[in-house]
Amino acid sequence: MSYRTETDTMGALEVSADRYWGAQTQRSIQNFPIYRERFVWDRPVIRALGILKKGAAQANRDLGELPADVADLIIRAADEVIAGLLDEHFPLVVFQTGSGTQSNMNANEVISNRAIELAGGEMGSKKPVHPNDHVNRGQSSNDTFPTAMHIAVVLELHERLFPSVGRLRDTLAAKAEQYADIVKVGRTHLQDATPITLGQEIGGWVAQIDYCLAEVRHSLEGLYDLAIGGTAVGTGLNAHPQFGDLAAAYFAKETGYPFRSAANKFAALSAHDALVQTSAALRTLAGALMKMANDVRWLASGPRNGIGEINIPENEPGSSIMPGKVNPTQSEAITMVAVQVFGNDAAVAFAGSQGNFQLNVFKPVMVHNVLESIRLLSDACLAFNDNCAVGIEPNLPKIAANLEQNLMQVTALNRHIGYDKAAAIAKKAHKEGTTLKQAALALGYLTEEEFDRWVVPMDMTHPSV
Amino acid sequence: MSYRTETDTMGALEVSADRYWGAQTQRSIQNFPIYRERFVWDRPVIRALGILKKGAAQANRDLGELPADVADLIIRAADEVIAGLLDEHFPLVVFQTGSGTQSNMNANEVISNRAIELAGGEMGSKKPVHPNDHVNRGQSSNDTFPTAMHIAVVLELHERLFPSVGRLRDTLAAKAEQYADIVKVGRTHLQDATPITLGQEIGGWVAQIDYCLAEVRHSLEGLYDLAIGGTAVGTGLNAHPQFGDLAAAYFAKETGYPFRSAANKFAALSAHDALVQTSAALRTLAGALMKMANDVRWLASGPRNGIGEINIPENEPGSSIMPGKVNPTQSEAITMVAVQVFGNDAAVAFAGSQGNFQLNVFKPVMVHNVLESIRLLSDACLAFNDNCAVGIEPNLPKIAANLEQNLMQVTALNRHIGYDKAAAIAKKAHKEGTTLKQAALALGYLTEEEFDRWVVPMDMTHPSV
Amino acid sequence: MSYRTETDTMGALEVSADRYWGAQTQRSIQNFPIYRERFVWDRPVIRALGILKKGAAQANRDLGELPADVADLIIRAADEVIAGLLDEHFPLVVFQTGSGTQSNMNANEVISNRAIELAGGEMGSKKPVHPNDHVNRGQSSNDTFPTAMHIAVVLELHERLFPSVGRLRDTLAAKAEQYADIVKVGRTHLQDATPITLGQEIGGWVAQIDYCLAEVRHSLEGLYDLAIGGTAVGTGLNAHPQFGDLAAAYFAKETGYPFRSAANKFAALSAHDALVQTSAALRTLAGALMKMANDVRWLASGPRNGIGEINIPENEPGSSIMPGKVNPTQSEAITMVAVQVFGNDAAVAFAGSQGNFQLNVFKPVMVHNVLESIRLLSDACLAFNDNCAVGIEPNLPKIAANLEQNLMQVTALNRHIGYDKAAAIAKKAHKEGTTLKQAALALGYLTEEEFDRWVVPMDMTHPSV
Amino acid sequence: MSYRTETDTMGALEVSADRYWGAQTQRSIQNFPIYRERFVWDRPVIRALGILKKGAAQANRDLGELPADVADLIIRAADEVIAGLLDEHFPLVVFQTGSGTQSNMNANEVISNRAIELAGGEMGSKKPVHPNDHVNRGQSSNDTFPTAMHIAVVLELHERLFPSVGRLRDTLAAKAEQYADIVKVGRTHLQDATPITLGQEIGGWVAQIDYCLAEVRHSLEGLYDLAIGGTAVGTGLNAHPQFGDLAAAYFAKETGYPFRSAANKFAALSAHDALVQTSAALRTLAGALMKMANDVRWLASGPRNGIGEINIPENEPGSSIMPGKVNPTQSEAITMVAVQVFGNDAAVAFAGSQGNFQLNVFKPVMVHNVLESIRLLSDACLAFNDNCAVGIEPNLPKIAANLEQNLMQVTALNRHIGYDKAAAIAKKAHKEGTTLKQAALALGYLTEEEFDRWVVPMDMTHPSV
Repeated sequence: MSYRTETDTMGALEVSADRYWGAQTQRSIQNFPIYRERFVWDRPVIRALGILKKGAAQANRDLGELPADVADLIIRAADEVIAGLLDEHFPLVVFQTGSGTQSNMNANEVISNRAIELAGGEMGSKKPVHPNDHVNRGQSSNDTFPTAMHIAVVLELHERLFPSVGRLRDTLAAKAEQYADIVKVGRTHLQDATPITLGQEIGGWVAQIDYCLAEVRHSLEGLYDLAIGGTAVGTGLNAHPQFGDLAAAYFAKETGYPFRSAANKFAALSAHDALVQTSAALRTLAGALMKMANDVRWLASGPRNGIGEINIPENEPGSSIMPGKVNPTQSEAITMVAVQVFGNDAAVAFAGSQGNFQLNVFKPVMVHNVLESIRLLSDACLAFNDNCAVGIEPNLPKIAANLEQNLMQVTALNRHIGYDKAAAIAKKAHKEGTTLKQAALALGYLTEEEFDRWVVPMDMTHPSV
Repeated sequence: MSYRTETDTMGALEVSADRYWGAQTQRSIQNFPIYRERFVWDRPVIRALGILKKGAAQANRDLGELPADVADLIIRAADEVIAGLLDEHFPLVVFQTGSGTQSNMNANEVISNRAIELAGGEMGSKKPVHPNDHVNRGQSSNDTFPTAMHIAVVLELHERLFPSVGRLRDTLAAKAEQYADIVKVGRTHLQDATPITLGQEIGGWVAQIDYCLAEVRHSLEGLYDLAIGGTAVGTGLNAHPQFGDLAAAYFAKETGYPFRSAANKFAALSAHDALVQTSAALRTLAGALMKMANDVRWLASGPRNGIGEINIPENEPGSSIMPGKVNPTQSEAITMVAVQVFGNDAAVAFAGSQGNFQLNVFKPVMVHNVLESIRLLSDACLAFNDNCAVGIEPNLPKIAANLEQNLMQVTALNRHIGYDKAAAIAKKAHKEGTTLKQAALALGYLTEEEFDRWVVPMDMTHPSV
Repeated sequence: MSYRTETDTMGALEVSADRYWGAQTQRSIQNFPIYRERFVWDRPVIRALGILKKGAAQANRDLGELPADVADLIIRAADEVIAGLLDEHFPLVVFQTGSGTQSNMNANEVISNRAIELAGGEMGSKKPVHPNDHVNRGQSSNDTFPTAMHIAVVLELHERLFPSVGRLRDTLAAKAEQYADIVKVGRTHLQDATPITLGQEIGGWVAQIDYCLAEVRHSLEGLYDLAIGGTAVGTGLNAHPQFGDLAAAYFAKETGYPFRSAANKFAALSAHDALVQTSAALRTLAGALMKMANDVRWLASGPRNGIGEINIPENEPGSSIMPGKVNPTQSEAITMVAVQVFGNDAAVAFAGSQGNFQLNVFKPVMVHNVLESIRLLSDACLAFNDNCAVGIEPNLPKIAANLEQNLMQVTALNRHIGYDKAAAIAKKAHKEGTTLKQAALALGYLTEEEFDRWVVPMDMTHPSV
Repeated sequence: MSYRTETDTMGALEVSADRYWGAQTQRSIQNFPIYRERFVWDRPVIRALGILKKGAAQANRDLGELPADVADLIIRAADEVIAGLLDEHFPLVVFQTGSGTQSNMNANEVISNRAIELAGGEMGSKKPVHPNDHVNRGQSSNDTFPTAMHIAVVLELHERLFPSVGRLRDTLAAKAEQYADIVKVGRTHLQDATPITLGQEIGGWVAQIDYCLAEVRHSLEGLYDLAIGGTAVGTGLNAHPQFGDLAAAYFAKETGYPFRSAANKFAALSAHDALVQTSAALRTLAGALMKMANDVRWLASGPRNGIGEINIPENEPGSSIMPGKVNPTQSEAITMVAVQVFGNDAAVAFAGSQGNFQLNVFKPVMVHNVLESIRLLSDACLAFNDNCAVGIEPNLPKIAANLEQNLMQVTALNRHIGYDKAAAIAKKAHKEGTTLKQAALALGYLTEEEFDRWVVPMDMTHPSV
C-alpha cells in the first residue's frame, strides 16, 4: 500500500494513496473509531454534501468569489460526489465532531484533491484548488453541515418516503373501496360494538396515514430554510452578502425543491427545530402504522381461536416447532420499525434541546436518526404493502357468523324505546345466551316486525335519519 | 349528610344529596381512587364538556331531535358548567375508562339533574331530562370525549399559551433590538468564536420561538377537526346526519374558533394524531426554551468565574449556606418545565399508538398531558418573562474585556491572507499569550494598518463585501 | 388579614400572620406561580423535610454544634412537620430553584418560626432559633434536598408501592394456583399455539411482577445513600466531620430503614443516578403491568366476538350509547397509568443527565416524577386488584370449545413423526376445516390409537418425557 | 451463479449454491428488504446463535435426544459459527418476524447444511441432519432466540463494555488522585461556589461511573436466566425435562458465565424485562457520561473567554473557517452517543411493554438496540479515554486566578459571624468589586488575622472541625 503526505494546520500525516481525502479526514478516522460498521455515512448525506459544494461553487463563481476555472473544477468533482462515484472516499462516522466539521472537511478535501487530479496537479498540494479557501469558500461547517442535513432529508422524504408510504396508502384506499359493503362487527374497548363496514375500518387507517403524510409534508417548509450563508456563527462573516441566497437557488435548481436561505441564521446554526418537527411527524406516522398493523394482526388472529375476520398472505413457515403455523410477520416487522422510530425521535428531540450559544453540536446524531427513520419507514411500508396489504381479504363466513351473534345491534333501538330498555334487552340476551330478538320479544318492548325493521346492520353503518 | 338514590343500568346507589352527579359518576369515584389530589380534571376539560353539551343540545333542537323545552333546560345547565359554577360536581380523575365515558356521563348526569332542578323536577328521576336519551342525544362518549379534548386544548392554546409565550417572545424581541449594536464574543463548541452582537444572539432565540409558535399554531388545523357526529364507532349511528356539522358550528359560535366535523370519524375515534402533533410541537417549543434558558444562565454565570456577559435580576437569596449567592432560578424552573414537557410528550405519543379497531382507549391520559404541558409552558414563560427576561442587561465591561482578548477575530483575515496563514497567527498568539495583532505583525503576514482595517469586530457581524 | 414582617439577606417583606413561613418562601410564592393547583408538594416531601431537619438537629446537638435547648425546639417543630400538622405552611411548587433551595428554606423558616413560637419568642425575629444558623446548621440545600428526596422515595416505596403492588401480585399468584389445571389454548404472534394452563398463563404475569419488584427493591440500595454531610459542593464545609453519618443514623432510627451517608458526596449532589435507576425500575414494572392488563382485556374480549376465555367483573355501564356494554375499564386505567409512568421516567432520565459541575439543578422535577409514578402505580394496582383481578374467572365453556378446535396440538407429533409430516397434517386440517385427528388419519401417518395417546392437551403443558 | 433447491413446509425455492442457508432464510431475505445495509445482524448475535446450537446439541446428545454422530456434526458446524467462519451465511436483518424465528431457522439451516457437507451428504436434503428435527431439537424460536439475545448481551457486556468503560474509569480515577491537592473554584447553579479540589471534581465523575457500572453488572443477574427449555409457549413441550438446565450448563461452560435455565419460562418468552433493565442501566451510564463530558468541555472552554481551568488534547483543527480553533470534539462524540443510547432505550422499553399472551414479538428490535448501545458506549469511552481523558491537565494559572477572586469563600465565616453578616460581606465585595477581605474589614465584622485564619481555601475542601 502506498501513501502520500497530507497536511492541515496541525501538521502532516500519511494518507493511503488511493484515497482522495486529506489530513483532517484521516485524523477523524483515527480519533473516532466508533462502530464504523454501522455508522459510516451513507448515500443521502454524501450526495447532499456534493450538492452543497457544487451549488456553493456556482454561487461563488457568479459572485466573483472564485475564479471560473477553479469553480469549474470543483463543480466537476462535486458532480462525481453527487453521482455516487466517490462514496468510498467518505469514511467518516456519525459520532465525530458535533458540528459535522470533519465531514464538511471530508467533502472539501475529497473535492479539492479530485479537482486537483482533474487539473493534472499534485494531490495534497492544495493547488490549484484549496479545500478551505476554495471548496469551502464563504462557508463554515456550521452553516454547510446543517444545510446538507436539510438537503439530505428533503430528498429522502420526496424520493423515498412519500412514494413508499403512498404505495401502501393507495393499496389500503383501494381495499377500503373494494370492501365498502361488507358489514361486520365494530369493536371498542376490544368489546363487540355496533356494526361497521370493512371498508370503513380500513378507511380509518387511510385517513390516519393521509393526515400523517400531510404533516410530514408540512415539515418540509422548515426544511427548505437553509443555514447556508451564516458561516461560522450566523453573521455571514467571510461570505458574500448574496452568497446564501444564490447558493440556495442553485440547490433548488439542482434538486427541483424550493430551498431558500433561512431568514435567521443564528437560529439555523444553533438549533434544528425543523428537524425535530420532521422527526416528530415521522413518529406520528409510525404510531399510525403501528395501530394499522396491530389491527391487521388482530383481525387476522386465529386461525380458529382469534378474531379471524380477515385473511392475510402466508409468507413463510411461522414456527420452528409448531408445524403449519403462519404468523403476521409483516405486522411484526413494521411495528418493530415503529418502536425504532419512536426511539430515534427521542434521540433527535433530546439532541435538539442541547444547543449552546451559536451552535448546536448534536448535528450528526440528529440527521442520522431522521434519515434512518425515513429509510426504515419507507422500506417497511413497501415490504408490508407487497407482502401483506395487497393480499388482505375478508373471511366472509367468519364475518357473517360474528355479526350474526353480536349484541350491540341493540343500540339501534335507543331512538325507539330508549337507552334503559335497550340495555335490559342486551343484558337479558347476554345472560341467557339468546339472540337479541328473542330477548326483545320476551321482554315485550317491541314487536318482531319492529325489531326486523329497526335492527338492520347495514343501516347502522351510517347516521340515522 | 343526606343522600338520594340514583340509578343506572346496573342498579341503584346513594349519592350525596348536595351533588348533581348520578350513579355512573358515583361508581367511577369508587372504582378509580387513583391519586385524586392531583388528577381530578380541572377547568379546561370541564368547560369543554359544557361547551360540548350546550352545542349538542342546540344542534339537536334545530334538527328536531330534542324538544325545544328540553334543549333549553340542557343549555341553561350547560351554561353554568361553562361558567365554572358547577366545577365541584365534576369529581372524576384522569385514570378512568380510557374512552372518557365516565366523564361524559358525569357531564350528562350533572346537566340532567341541574336541568331537572331548573324545571322543578326530582333529581335522579331522569325526567324531564334524561342523561342518556336527552343530554347525550345523538352522541357517544367515543365521539364526545375526543371532541371535548380538542375544544379544551384549542381554548388553552389560544387563551393561555399564545399570550404567555408571546409575552416572553416580545420581551426578547425588544431586547434584541435594544442591544443590536453591542458587539461581543460569539461561541461555538463552547469555544470562543467570531464576534456577534448581543442583539443577534437574543434574536436567535426569538427566531426559534417564532418557529415553534407557528408550528403549534399549525397543529390547530388538526384540532379543529372534531369527532362529533361519529357516535359509537364512527358510523354516526343514532345521530342525525346533520348533527356533527351543526354541533361543530355551534361550538365555533360559542368559542370563536373554526371547529368543524372531521371528514373521517373512524380515525377521529380510533386515533388522536392531531393531539400527538400538538404535543410534539409543544416539545419542540420546550426544547427551544431550554436552549434559550441555558444560554441565559451561562451568559450570566459567575459572578467572577464564569462568562458573566449579561446580568439578570436577583430575585431571592441563592443559597441556604453560601451567603450572598444569587442563582439563575428562573432558568432552572423553565428548564425543569421543559423536561417535564418532554416526559409528557413521551406519554402522549406512546398512548397515541395504542388504539385498537374503532377506539383508542388512552384518551384521558393524552389530553391530560397536553393540557398540563400547555399550562406549564405558559406559566413558566410568564414567570421567566416577568422575573428574568425583562431584566436582562449587558455587562458592558465584561463584554468589552472578553472581546478584546478574543482570538477568533483572526477569521477576518482568511479572505486576505488565506486560512493557513490566519491559523498560524491565531496559534502563535494563543501559545504566547499575545494579542492577535502582535502575533500577526511578528509573523510579518500583514501590516499594522492592514490589521486595523481588516479586523474590526463590528464589521464581522455581517456578511463581507 | 394581618401580616408580619419577615426578612432575609435581600430585605424585608410581608407575610400573612397566620403562616409560619418567612421571607424566602414568600419570595418563591411570588416568583414561581407555576400551576400551583397541581404542583404544590404534598405529604411525602414535606414529611421527609421534617425527618431531615429533626435528624440534623439531633446530630448537631450530639456533636455540640447546637445548644440542647435550641435543638430540642427544632425537634419539636420538626415532629409536627413529620406528623402532617403543618402541611399548609408548605406552599411551594415543584418548578422553583433547581436545587430545591426554596423548599429547604421553607422547612428552615417554618421550623424556625414554630420553634420560636414554642419558645414564646417573636416570629420573624430568628431568635432563639435562626433558620440558617440553627435549623440549617451544617447543611446546604444542595445536600439536604437530595437527602429529603431519597427519604421521601424510600418511604413511599416501602409504605405504598410494595404493599399495593404486592396485593395484586398475591391475588394473581392465588389465581395461578387455583387455575393450575385448566388447560387452554396458548397464543403466540396472536395466533393459536400449543396448550397451556390458565394457571401457567397467570403465573407468567406473577413472575414478571416478582422480577420487577425485586428490581425496585434493588434500587433502594442506591437510595439509602444520602447526600447529607456534603453541604454546598460536596466537601462538607461548615459541617462537623461526623455530621453526615450521625444524621443518617438518626434518619434510620426515625424511619426504620438503613440510611447512610454516601461515600462520595460530589456525585451525590451533582447527579441522582439512583433516582434514575429507581425510575427505570418503575418503568419496567409499568411495562409488565401493561402486558398483564392487555392480556386480561384481550382474554376477556367479546362477549361474543372476541377471545372470551375469562370473565372479569362488570363495574359500570360501559357505554353512554351502547346499552348493556361492559368494558375492561380497570385494564384501561392501569395501562394509562403505565404510559404516564413511561413519560415520567423520560423526564427523570433527561433531567438526570443535565448536571453541571457540583450540582444537578433538576432535583425537584426528578423527585416529583418518581413520587408521582409510585403513587400512580400503587393506586392503580389497588384499584385493579380490588375491582378486577379478584374477580377474574375462567369462562370454562369457551376455553373448552377453543381448545377443542385448536390445530397446534399437532406439535406433539413432532417427536413421533417429524416436523414435516406434522405440518402436513395441520395444513390439511386447516384447509379442509377438519379436526387434526381426521386429517392425521386421512394422511395415514399414524393410527387413531397413537393419535389419542400422543395428543393429550394436558400432557402438552409440561416438558416431554 | 449456480443454485440448489431448498424446501420448507411451504414448498421449494432456489438458493445460491455457495450459501449454506435454506428455504426459510431465503424467504426472509425476499420478504424483509428493510435497510439491509445497516440492520443485518453482526457478530454478537451470530456468535450467540452458534453457542446456542452447540450447547443444545450437547445437551440433547447427553439426554439421548440426538444420536451422538448427528450431535457431533452439529457441534462442529456450530463451532464454525461461533468462530465467525460463517458470518456471510447470516444475511437476515433486525426487522423480520418478531420472534426471531427466521434467524433461528437461519442458524438451523446453515448448521444443518454445513453439517451435511461435513458428513459428505447433499445440501438441502436435510439428511443426515435435519434443521428442525435435529438442530432445533427440543427447541422453538420462542425460547432459543431470547436465549441467544441474553448470551449475546452478556458476552458484549463482559468482553466489551466493562473493559472499555473501565479503562476510562481508571484513567479518571488516576487523574483524581493526581490532582487531589489542586484547589479550585467550585460551581453550583453555574455560579461560583465554595472551593473544591480538582481531584474531588473528577472523583465525582468516577463515583458516578462506578455506580452505573455496578448497576449494569447487577442487570446481568436477570440476563443469566435463559428461556431455553420453554420451547413454543413456555411449557417445554417436546423438550426433554432436563434439556433447559443442561443446555444452560453447556452455555456456561462454553462462555465462562453462569447461565441457567429461568425459573419461569412463561415470563421468559412473553417479556424481556431483564433486557429492559439492562437498557435502563446503560441509559443511566450514558447520562453519567454526558454529565462528565459536559463538565470536561465547560472546564476546557475558552481559550480566553470561557472557564478554561483544564486543558484537553488538541486532536484536529476545529473549524473549517476559524483558523486555529480547537474544539472539545471527544466530548461532542460521547454526548451524541449518550443521546443515541437514550433513544435506543426508549425503543427497548416501549417494545418490552408490547407482549401479548405467550410471546413478545419485539425481540429482534430489543436486542438490536441493547447491543448497539453497548457497542457505542464502549467505542466512545475508548475514544474519549485515548484522545481526551488521558490528556486532561489543569490550567494552573487560570485555576489560581479564578480562585483568588472567588467570593464564596465567605461561607467559611458562617460558623464564626453567622450567615447574615457573611452575606453582607459578600454582597459588599460584589457590589464594589473588592476582595472579600477588603469588604470584611471595611464592615468591621472581624480582624484581618481572623480572616486569614478562617478563610483558607484548602481548609474549605473538607468538613470543618
